[in-house]
Amino acid sequence: MSNVRVLAFDVFGTVVDWRSGVAARARALLEPHGHALDWGAFADRFRKGYQPALEQVRAGLRPFVNLDVLHREVLTTMLAELGLSGLSESACGSLVQAWHELDPWPDAVPGLLRLKTRFTLATLSNAHLALLVHMAKRAQLPWDVILSAELVSAYKPAAASYDSVARFLAVAPEACLMVAAHSSDLDAARARGLGTAYVHRPHELGTHKPRKRPEAGRFDFYAEDLEDLASQLGC
Amino acid sequence: MSNVRVLAFDVFGTVVDWRSGVAARARALLEPHGHALDWGAFADRFRKGYQPALEQVRAGLRPFVNLDVLHREVLTTMLAELGLSGLSESACGSLVQAWHELDPWPDAVPGLLRLKTRFTLATLSNAHLALLVHMAKRAQLPWDVILSAELVSAYKPAAASYDSVARFLAVAPEACLMVAAHSSDLDAARARGLGTAYVHRPHELGTHKPRKRPEAGRFDFYAEDLEDLASQLGC
Repeated sequence: MSNVRVLAFDVFGTVVDWRSGVAARARALLEPHGHALDWGAFADRFRKGYQPALEQVRAGLRPFVNLDVLHREVLTTMLAELGLSGLSESACGSLVQAWHELDPWPDAVPGLLRLKTRFTLATLSNAHLALLVHMAKRAQLPWDVILSAELVSAYKPAAASYDSVARFLAVAPEACLMVAAHSSDLDAARARGLGTAYVHRPHELGTHKPRKRPEAGRFDFYAEDLEDLASQLGC
Repeated sequence: MSNVRVLAFDVFGTVVDWRSGVAARARALLEPHGHALDWGAFADRFRKGYQPALEQVRAGLRPFVNLDVLHREVLTTMLAELGLSGLSESACGSLVQAWHELDPWPDAVPGLLRLKTRFTLATLSNAHLALLVHMAKRAQLPWDVILSAELVSAYKPAAASYDSVARFLAVAPEACLMVAAHSSDLDAARARGLGTAYVHRPHELGTHKPRKRPEAGRFDFYAEDLEDLASQLGC
Protein backbone atom coordinates (compact mmCIF):
# COMPACT_ATOMS: atom_id res chain seq x y z
CA MET A 1 0.00 0.00 0.00
CA SER A 2 3.01 2.28 -0.34
CA ASN A 3 1.48 4.06 -3.32
CA VAL A 4 -1.52 5.39 -1.36
CA ARG A 5 -1.87 9.13 -1.75
CA VAL A 6 -5.52 9.83 -0.99
CA LEU A 7 -7.61 8.84 2.02
CA ALA A 8 -11.36 8.99 1.39
CA PHE A 9 -13.41 9.09 4.59
CA ASP A 10 -16.88 8.03 5.34
CA VAL A 11 -18.13 10.64 7.80
CA PHE A 12 -21.26 9.68 9.79
CA GLY A 13 -20.13 7.14 12.36
CA THR A 14 -16.54 6.99 11.13
CA VAL A 15 -15.49 10.57 11.91
CA VAL A 16 -18.42 12.01 13.86
CA ASP A 17 -20.72 10.54 16.52
CA TRP A 18 -24.14 11.10 14.95
CA ARG A 19 -26.09 9.14 17.56
CA SER A 20 -25.17 11.21 20.62
CA GLY A 21 -25.51 14.49 18.76
CA VAL A 22 -28.92 13.78 17.27
CA ALA A 23 -30.20 12.26 20.52
CA ALA A 24 -29.14 15.31 22.52
CA ARG A 25 -30.79 17.71 20.07
CA ALA A 26 -34.02 15.70 19.98
CA ARG A 27 -34.15 15.62 23.74
CA ALA A 28 -33.50 19.35 24.06
CA LEU A 29 -36.31 20.12 21.62
CA LEU A 30 -38.91 17.50 22.60
CA GLU A 31 -38.57 17.10 26.37
CA PRO A 32 -39.90 20.60 27.05
CA HIS A 33 -43.12 19.49 25.29
CA GLY A 34 -43.51 16.69 27.84
CA HIS A 35 -42.22 13.92 25.59
CA ALA A 36 -40.14 11.21 27.26
CA LEU A 37 -38.40 8.84 24.87
CA ASP A 38 -35.32 6.69 24.50
CA TRP A 39 -33.45 9.47 22.69
CA GLY A 40 -30.75 7.19 21.36
CA ALA A 41 -33.41 5.00 19.80
CA PHE A 42 -34.97 8.14 18.32
CA ALA A 43 -31.62 8.92 16.67
CA ASP A 44 -31.34 5.32 15.39
CA ARG A 45 -34.78 5.55 13.85
CA PHE A 46 -33.93 8.90 12.25
CA ARG A 47 -30.76 7.41 10.78
CA LYS A 48 -32.49 4.31 9.43
CA GLY A 49 -35.46 6.29 8.18
CA TYR A 50 -33.88 7.63 5.04
CA GLN A 51 -32.54 4.33 3.77
CA PRO A 52 -35.72 3.54 1.78
CA ALA A 53 -35.50 6.98 0.16
CA LEU A 54 -31.82 6.40 -0.69
CA GLU A 55 -32.84 3.12 -2.28
CA GLN A 56 -35.36 4.93 -4.44
CA VAL A 57 -32.69 7.36 -5.60
CA ARG A 58 -30.24 4.52 -6.25
CA ALA A 59 -32.85 2.65 -8.24
CA GLY A 60 -33.54 5.73 -10.35
CA LEU A 61 -37.15 5.93 -9.11
CA ARG A 62 -36.54 9.36 -7.70
CA PRO A 63 -34.21 12.19 -8.71
CA PHE A 64 -31.23 12.89 -6.48
CA VAL A 65 -32.18 15.04 -3.51
CA ASN A 66 -29.88 15.96 -0.65
CA LEU A 67 -29.86 14.66 2.92
CA ASP A 68 -31.54 17.77 4.35
CA VAL A 69 -34.56 17.02 2.19
CA LEU A 70 -34.57 13.35 3.14
CA HIS A 71 -34.03 14.10 6.84
CA ARG A 72 -36.97 16.52 6.82
CA GLU A 73 -39.22 13.90 5.26
CA VAL A 74 -38.15 11.25 7.75
CA LEU A 75 -38.72 13.62 10.64
CA THR A 76 -42.28 14.41 9.57
CA THR A 77 -43.07 10.69 9.32
CA MET A 78 -41.43 9.91 12.66
CA LEU A 79 -43.20 12.68 14.53
CA ALA A 80 -46.54 11.41 13.23
CA GLU A 81 -45.78 7.74 13.95
CA LEU A 82 -44.53 8.47 17.46
CA GLY A 83 -47.41 10.82 18.21
CA LEU A 84 -45.04 13.68 18.96
CA SER A 85 -46.68 17.07 18.69
CA GLY A 86 -45.84 20.64 19.52
CA LEU A 87 -42.68 21.00 17.45
CA SER A 88 -42.53 24.28 15.56
CA GLU A 89 -41.23 24.53 12.02
CA SER A 90 -38.03 26.09 13.32
CA ALA A 91 -37.57 23.26 15.83
CA CYS A 92 -37.94 20.76 12.98
CA GLY A 93 -35.32 22.75 11.09
CA SER A 94 -33.06 22.56 14.11
CA LEU A 95 -33.40 18.76 14.21
CA VAL A 96 -32.45 18.54 10.53
CA GLN A 97 -29.58 20.93 11.24
CA ALA A 98 -28.38 18.66 14.07
CA TRP A 99 -26.89 16.40 11.37
CA HIS A 100 -24.63 19.32 10.37
CA GLU A 101 -23.52 19.97 13.94
CA LEU A 102 -22.19 16.64 15.11
CA ASP A 103 -19.15 16.26 17.30
CA PRO A 104 -16.15 14.26 16.08
CA TRP A 105 -14.98 11.18 17.98
CA PRO A 106 -12.18 12.34 20.33
CA ASP A 107 -9.41 10.83 18.18
CA ALA A 108 -10.73 12.23 14.89
CA VAL A 109 -9.21 15.72 14.71
CA PRO A 110 -5.76 14.77 16.08
CA GLY A 111 -5.74 11.68 13.84
CA LEU A 112 -6.73 13.65 10.74
CA LEU A 113 -4.10 16.31 11.44
CA ARG A 114 -1.42 13.61 11.52
CA LEU A 115 -2.74 11.91 8.39
CA LYS A 116 -2.91 15.24 6.55
CA THR A 117 0.86 15.58 6.71
CA ARG A 118 1.31 12.66 4.30
CA PHE A 119 -1.98 12.19 2.48
CA THR A 120 -4.71 14.12 0.73
CA LEU A 121 -7.75 13.89 2.97
CA ALA A 122 -11.08 13.72 1.17
CA THR A 123 -14.56 13.11 2.47
CA LEU A 124 -16.64 10.58 0.59
CA SER A 125 -20.03 10.82 2.19
CA ASN A 126 -23.66 10.55 1.21
CA ALA A 127 -24.10 13.95 2.82
CA HIS A 128 -24.10 16.98 0.54
CA LEU A 129 -21.40 19.63 0.34
CA ALA A 130 -23.21 22.26 2.39
CA LEU A 131 -23.65 19.84 5.30
CA LEU A 132 -20.06 18.61 5.12
CA VAL A 133 -18.67 22.15 4.97
CA HIS A 134 -20.78 23.30 7.94
CA MET A 135 -19.73 20.24 9.91
CA ALA A 136 -16.06 20.67 9.07
CA LYS A 137 -15.97 24.34 10.02
CA ARG A 138 -17.74 23.75 13.32
CA ALA A 139 -15.75 20.65 14.27
CA GLN A 140 -12.43 21.81 12.77
CA LEU A 141 -12.11 18.79 10.49
CA PRO A 142 -9.06 19.54 8.31
CA TRP A 143 -10.23 18.14 4.96
CA ASP A 144 -8.21 18.92 1.87
CA VAL A 145 -11.24 18.45 -0.36
CA ILE A 146 -14.93 17.77 0.16
CA LEU A 147 -16.19 14.99 -2.09
CA SER A 148 -19.72 13.73 -1.87
CA ALA A 149 -22.33 11.55 -3.48
CA GLU A 150 -23.88 14.89 -4.46
CA LEU A 151 -21.12 15.60 -6.97
CA VAL A 152 -22.03 12.55 -9.02
CA SER A 153 -25.71 12.34 -7.97
CA ALA A 154 -25.07 8.75 -6.86
CA TYR A 155 -25.38 7.62 -3.28
CA LYS A 156 -22.93 5.09 -1.88
CA PRO A 157 -22.63 2.18 -2.43
CA ALA A 158 -23.13 3.14 -6.09
CA ALA A 159 -19.93 2.53 -8.06
CA ALA A 160 -19.96 6.07 -9.47
CA SER A 161 -19.50 7.45 -6.00
CA TYR A 162 -16.26 5.51 -5.33
CA ASP A 163 -15.02 6.00 -8.88
CA SER A 164 -15.29 9.77 -8.47
CA VAL A 165 -12.47 9.92 -5.90
CA ALA A 166 -9.72 8.75 -8.23
CA ARG A 167 -11.17 10.71 -11.13
CA PHE A 168 -11.47 14.04 -9.29
CA LEU A 169 -8.04 13.70 -7.70
CA ALA A 170 -6.34 12.38 -10.85
CA VAL A 171 -4.87 9.27 -9.28
CA ALA A 172 -5.34 5.55 -9.83
CA PRO A 173 -8.08 3.85 -7.74
CA GLU A 174 -5.40 1.85 -5.92
CA ALA A 175 -3.81 5.12 -4.76
CA CYS A 176 -7.01 5.76 -2.78
CA LEU A 177 -7.80 4.21 0.59
CA MET A 178 -11.43 4.22 1.70
CA VAL A 179 -11.65 4.73 5.47
CA ALA A 180 -14.89 3.66 7.12
CA ALA A 181 -16.41 2.05 10.18
CA HIS A 182 -18.84 0.06 8.04
CA SER A 183 -17.92 -3.14 6.24
CA SER A 184 -20.51 -2.67 3.49
CA ASP A 185 -18.99 0.68 2.53
CA LEU A 186 -15.52 -0.85 2.41
CA ASP A 187 -16.66 -3.89 0.43
CA ALA A 188 -18.17 -1.60 -2.20
CA ALA A 189 -15.02 0.53 -2.33
CA ARG A 190 -12.81 -2.53 -2.73
CA ALA A 191 -14.98 -3.71 -5.61
CA ARG A 192 -14.06 -0.46 -7.41
CA GLY A 193 -10.33 -0.95 -6.83
CA LEU A 194 -9.80 1.25 -3.78
CA GLY A 195 -7.80 0.09 -0.77
CA THR A 196 -9.74 -0.32 2.48
CA ALA A 197 -9.18 0.73 6.08
CA TYR A 198 -11.66 -0.40 8.70
CA VAL A 199 -11.95 1.84 11.75
CA HIS A 200 -13.54 0.25 14.80
CA ARG A 201 -16.30 2.40 16.31
CA PRO A 202 -17.71 -0.05 18.83
CA HIS A 203 -20.29 2.35 20.25
CA GLU A 204 -21.63 3.98 17.11
CA LEU A 205 -25.02 2.43 17.91
CA GLY A 206 -24.71 2.95 21.66
CA THR A 207 -22.81 1.22 24.44
CA HIS A 208 -25.59 -1.39 24.73
CA LYS A 209 -25.02 -2.53 21.15
CA PRO A 210 -21.26 -2.97 20.73
CA ARG A 211 -20.30 -3.54 17.13
CA LYS A 212 -18.50 -6.77 16.18
CA ARG A 213 -15.21 -6.56 14.35
CA PRO A 214 -15.17 -7.84 10.79
CA GLU A 215 -13.06 -10.92 10.12
CA ALA A 216 -9.31 -10.60 9.55
CA GLY A 217 -8.13 -10.51 5.94
CA ARG A 218 -11.21 -8.81 4.55
CA PHE A 219 -9.71 -5.30 4.56
CA ASP A 220 -6.22 -3.86 4.08
CA PHE A 221 -6.07 -2.10 7.46
CA TYR A 222 -7.84 -2.49 10.79
CA ALA A 223 -7.54 0.52 13.06
CA GLU A 224 -8.80 1.14 16.58
CA ASP A 225 -9.34 4.80 15.73
CA LEU A 226 -7.88 7.52 13.48
CA GLU A 227 -4.82 8.04 15.67
CA ASP A 228 -4.09 4.33 15.32
CA LEU A 229 -4.58 4.56 11.56
CA ALA A 230 -2.12 7.47 11.46
CA SER A 231 0.45 5.35 13.30
CA GLN A 232 -0.08 2.38 11.00
CA LEU A 233 0.35 4.63 7.96
CA GLY A 234 3.59 6.07 9.30
CA CYS A 235 2.31 9.54 10.20
CA MET B 1 -23.09 43.22 2.72
CA SER B 2 -23.64 42.07 6.30
CA ASN B 3 -25.27 38.84 5.15
CA VAL B 4 -22.18 37.57 3.31
CA ARG B 5 -21.25 34.08 4.48
CA VAL B 6 -19.22 32.67 1.59
CA LEU B 7 -16.17 34.08 -0.19
CA ALA B 8 -15.53 32.53 -3.61
CA PHE B 9 -12.00 33.11 -4.85
CA ASP B 10 -10.58 33.24 -8.28
CA VAL B 11 -7.17 31.60 -7.91
CA PHE B 12 -4.72 32.26 -10.78
CA GLY B 13 -3.56 35.85 -10.38
CA THR B 14 -5.82 36.59 -7.42
CA VAL B 15 -4.32 34.17 -4.88
CA VAL B 16 -1.22 32.81 -6.61
CA ASP B 17 1.42 34.43 -8.82
CA TRP B 18 1.22 32.23 -11.89
CA ARG B 19 3.57 34.35 -14.02
CA SER B 20 6.67 34.10 -11.84
CA GLY B 21 6.14 30.41 -11.12
CA VAL B 22 5.63 29.36 -14.72
CA ALA B 23 8.47 31.59 -15.95
CA ALA B 24 10.89 30.10 -13.42
CA ARG B 25 9.94 26.53 -14.32
CA ALA B 26 10.24 27.22 -18.06
CA ARG B 27 13.64 28.78 -17.58
CA ALA B 28 14.87 25.89 -15.42
CA LEU B 29 13.81 23.39 -18.06
CA LEU B 30 14.66 25.21 -21.29
CA GLU B 31 17.81 27.20 -20.50
CA PRO B 32 19.93 24.03 -20.15
CA HIS B 33 19.00 23.28 -23.78
CA GLY B 34 20.52 26.59 -24.84
CA HIS B 35 17.26 28.46 -25.22
CA ALA B 36 17.26 32.11 -24.16
CA LEU B 37 13.84 33.72 -23.96
CA ASP B 38 11.89 36.39 -22.13
CA TRP B 39 10.57 33.85 -19.64
CA GLY B 40 7.81 36.11 -18.36
CA ALA B 41 6.56 36.52 -21.91
CA PHE B 42 6.68 32.74 -22.28
CA ALA B 43 4.40 32.44 -19.22
CA ASP B 44 2.04 35.09 -20.64
CA ARG B 45 1.80 33.22 -23.91
CA PHE B 46 1.15 29.95 -22.05
CA ARG B 47 -1.63 31.62 -20.05
CA LYS B 48 -3.27 33.20 -23.09
CA GLY B 49 -2.85 30.08 -25.15
CA TYR B 50 -5.74 28.11 -23.72
CA GLN B 51 -8.32 30.87 -24.07
CA PRO B 52 -9.37 29.74 -27.58
CA ALA B 53 -9.82 26.19 -26.27
CA LEU B 54 -11.90 27.49 -23.35
CA GLU B 55 -14.05 29.35 -25.86
CA GLN B 56 -14.65 26.13 -27.76
CA VAL B 57 -15.74 24.40 -24.56
CA ARG B 58 -17.97 27.34 -23.61
CA ALA B 59 -19.55 27.32 -27.06
CA GLY B 60 -20.26 23.61 -26.78
CA LEU B 61 -17.99 22.82 -29.74
CA ARG B 62 -15.81 20.63 -27.55
CA PRO B 63 -16.55 18.52 -24.48
CA PHE B 64 -15.26 19.76 -21.15
CA VAL B 65 -11.61 18.84 -20.61
CA ASN B 66 -9.47 19.94 -17.71
CA LEU B 67 -6.68 22.50 -17.63
CA ASP B 68 -3.92 19.88 -17.63
CA VAL B 69 -5.16 18.69 -21.00
CA LEU B 70 -5.44 22.23 -22.34
CA HIS B 71 -2.06 23.26 -20.94
CA ARG B 72 -0.43 20.26 -22.58
CA GLU B 73 -1.94 21.16 -25.96
CA VAL B 74 -0.87 24.78 -25.63
CA LEU B 75 2.65 23.74 -24.70
CA THR B 76 3.02 21.52 -27.75
CA THR B 77 1.88 24.37 -30.01
CA MET B 78 4.15 26.91 -28.30
CA LEU B 79 7.22 24.74 -28.45
CA ALA B 80 6.68 24.26 -32.18
CA GLU B 81 5.95 27.95 -32.86
CA LEU B 82 8.95 29.14 -30.85
CA GLY B 83 11.24 26.52 -32.37
CA LEU B 84 12.09 25.09 -28.95
CA SER B 85 13.39 21.59 -29.10
CA GLY B 86 15.00 19.09 -26.76
CA LEU B 87 12.30 18.93 -24.11
CA SER B 88 11.57 15.40 -22.96
CA GLU B 89 8.08 14.16 -22.28
CA SER B 90 8.75 14.34 -18.55
CA ALA B 91 9.98 17.94 -18.87
CA CYS B 92 6.77 18.82 -20.71
CA GLY B 93 4.86 17.17 -17.86
CA SER B 94 6.82 19.26 -15.40
CA LEU B 95 5.83 22.45 -17.23
CA VAL B 96 2.16 21.44 -17.09
CA GLN B 97 2.66 20.59 -13.42
CA ALA B 98 4.13 24.05 -12.80
CA TRP B 99 0.54 25.36 -12.84
CA HIS B 100 -0.15 23.16 -9.78
CA GLU B 101 2.91 24.40 -7.92
CA LEU B 102 2.52 28.14 -7.89
CA ASP B 103 3.42 30.31 -4.94
CA PRO B 104 0.79 32.48 -3.28
CA TRP B 105 1.17 36.25 -3.17
CA PRO B 106 2.77 37.09 0.20
CA ASP B 107 -0.49 38.38 1.73
CA ALA B 108 -2.60 35.44 0.56
CA VAL B 109 -2.14 32.85 3.31
CA PRO B 110 -2.27 35.29 6.24
CA GLY B 111 -5.26 37.03 4.65
CA LEU B 112 -7.13 33.77 4.03
CA LEU B 113 -6.48 32.60 7.59
CA ARG B 114 -8.07 35.79 8.92
CA LEU B 115 -11.01 35.56 6.51
CA LYS B 116 -11.57 31.91 7.40
CA THR B 117 -12.49 32.85 10.96
CA ARG B 118 -15.71 34.53 9.77
CA PHE B 119 -16.46 33.16 6.32
CA THR B 120 -16.59 29.93 4.36
CA LEU B 121 -13.70 30.10 1.90
CA ALA B 122 -14.33 28.47 -1.47
CA THR B 123 -12.29 28.43 -4.60
CA LEU B 124 -14.13 29.20 -7.83
CA SER B 125 -11.56 28.57 -10.49
CA ASN B 126 -11.40 27.27 -14.03
CA ALA B 127 -8.77 24.86 -12.77
CA HIS B 128 -9.88 21.35 -11.91
CA LEU B 129 -10.07 19.83 -8.44
CA ALA B 130 -6.84 17.84 -8.66
CA LEU B 131 -4.85 20.96 -9.56
CA LEU B 132 -6.49 23.07 -6.87
CA VAL B 133 -5.95 20.41 -4.21
CA HIS B 134 -2.28 19.96 -5.13
CA MET B 135 -1.79 23.71 -5.10
CA ALA B 136 -3.55 24.16 -1.77
CA LYS B 137 -1.57 21.42 -0.03
CA ARG B 138 1.75 22.71 -1.31
CA ALA B 139 1.02 26.39 -0.62
CA GLN B 140 -1.00 25.83 2.58
CA LEU B 141 -4.07 27.58 1.25
CA PRO B 142 -6.72 27.02 3.93
CA TRP B 143 -9.82 26.49 1.75
CA ASP B 144 -12.98 25.18 3.35
CA VAL B 145 -14.18 23.75 0.07
CA ILE B 146 -12.79 23.38 -3.43
CA LEU B 147 -15.31 24.47 -6.07
CA SER B 148 -14.40 24.52 -9.72
CA ALA B 149 -15.72 24.92 -13.22
CA GLU B 150 -15.08 21.18 -13.42
CA LEU B 151 -17.96 20.40 -11.07
CA VAL B 152 -20.47 21.90 -13.48
CA SER B 153 -18.46 21.38 -16.69
CA ALA B 154 -18.77 25.09 -17.39
CA TYR B 155 -15.80 27.43 -17.52
CA LYS B 156 -16.11 30.94 -16.12
CA PRO B 157 -17.61 33.31 -17.13
CA ALA B 158 -20.44 30.83 -17.80
CA ALA B 159 -23.39 31.57 -15.51
CA ALA B 160 -23.56 27.93 -14.33
CA SER B 161 -20.14 28.31 -12.77
CA TYR B 162 -21.14 31.26 -10.54
CA ASP B 163 -24.57 29.79 -9.81
CA SER B 164 -22.94 26.63 -8.46
CA VAL B 165 -21.45 28.42 -5.44
CA ALA B 166 -24.76 29.35 -3.84
CA ARG B 167 -26.30 26.04 -4.82
CA PHE B 168 -23.52 23.82 -3.43
CA LEU B 169 -23.26 25.83 -0.23
CA ALA B 170 -27.02 26.23 0.23
CA VAL B 171 -27.02 29.99 0.55
CA ALA B 172 -28.54 32.82 -1.48
CA PRO B 173 -26.34 34.27 -4.26
CA GLU B 174 -26.17 37.56 -2.37
CA ALA B 175 -24.61 35.71 0.58
CA CYS B 176 -21.63 34.98 -1.70
CA LEU B 177 -18.85 37.41 -2.48
CA MET B 178 -16.73 36.73 -5.55
CA VAL B 179 -13.12 37.77 -4.90
CA ALA B 180 -10.97 38.33 -7.98
CA ALA B 181 -8.26 40.48 -9.48
CA HIS B 182 -10.06 40.55 -12.83
CA SER B 183 -12.95 42.85 -13.62
CA SER B 184 -14.47 40.53 -16.21
CA ASP B 185 -14.75 37.73 -13.65
CA LEU B 186 -16.41 40.08 -11.17
CA ASP B 187 -18.79 41.54 -13.76
CA ALA B 188 -19.97 38.04 -14.62
CA ALA B 189 -20.38 37.14 -10.94
CA ARG B 190 -22.40 40.29 -10.27
CA ALA B 191 -24.69 39.45 -13.19
CA ARG B 192 -25.57 36.23 -11.34
CA GLY B 193 -26.35 38.05 -8.09
CA LEU B 194 -23.07 37.56 -6.21
CA GLY B 195 -21.36 40.40 -4.38
CA THR B 196 -17.98 41.48 -5.74
CA ALA B 197 -14.59 42.20 -4.21
CA TYR B 198 -11.81 43.45 -6.45
CA VAL B 199 -8.27 42.69 -5.30
CA HIS B 200 -5.55 44.79 -6.86
CA ARG B 201 -2.68 42.69 -8.21
CA PRO B 202 -0.75 45.38 -10.05
CA HIS B 203 2.07 43.08 -11.14
CA GLU B 204 0.18 39.99 -12.21
CA LEU B 205 1.46 40.59 -15.75
CA GLY B 206 4.89 41.77 -14.61
CA THR B 207 6.25 44.98 -13.16
CA HIS B 208 6.57 46.47 -16.65
CA LYS B 209 2.84 46.17 -17.22
CA PRO B 210 1.15 47.55 -14.09
CA ARG B 211 -2.57 46.88 -14.06
CA LYS B 212 -4.98 49.82 -13.97
CA ARG B 213 -7.58 49.92 -11.21
CA PRO B 214 -11.20 49.63 -12.29
CA GLU B 215 -13.43 52.65 -11.77
CA ALA B 216 -14.99 53.30 -8.37
CA GLY B 217 -18.58 52.13 -7.88
CA ARG B 218 -18.33 49.13 -10.18
CA PHE B 219 -17.68 46.60 -7.39
CA ASP B 220 -18.73 46.27 -3.75
CA PHE B 221 -15.20 46.17 -2.33
CA TYR B 222 -11.78 47.31 -3.51
CA ALA B 223 -8.89 45.74 -1.66
CA GLU B 224 -5.14 46.25 -1.94
CA ASP B 225 -4.61 42.58 -1.07
CA LEU B 226 -6.23 39.79 0.97
CA GLU B 227 -5.05 41.19 4.30
CA ASP B 228 -6.74 44.47 3.38
CA LEU B 229 -9.89 42.58 2.40
CA ALA B 230 -9.85 40.82 5.78
CA SER B 231 -9.63 44.19 7.53
CA GLN B 232 -12.47 45.63 5.44
CA LEU B 233 -14.64 42.61 6.25
CA GLY B 234 -14.00 42.94 9.98
CA CYS B 235 -11.69 39.94 10.38
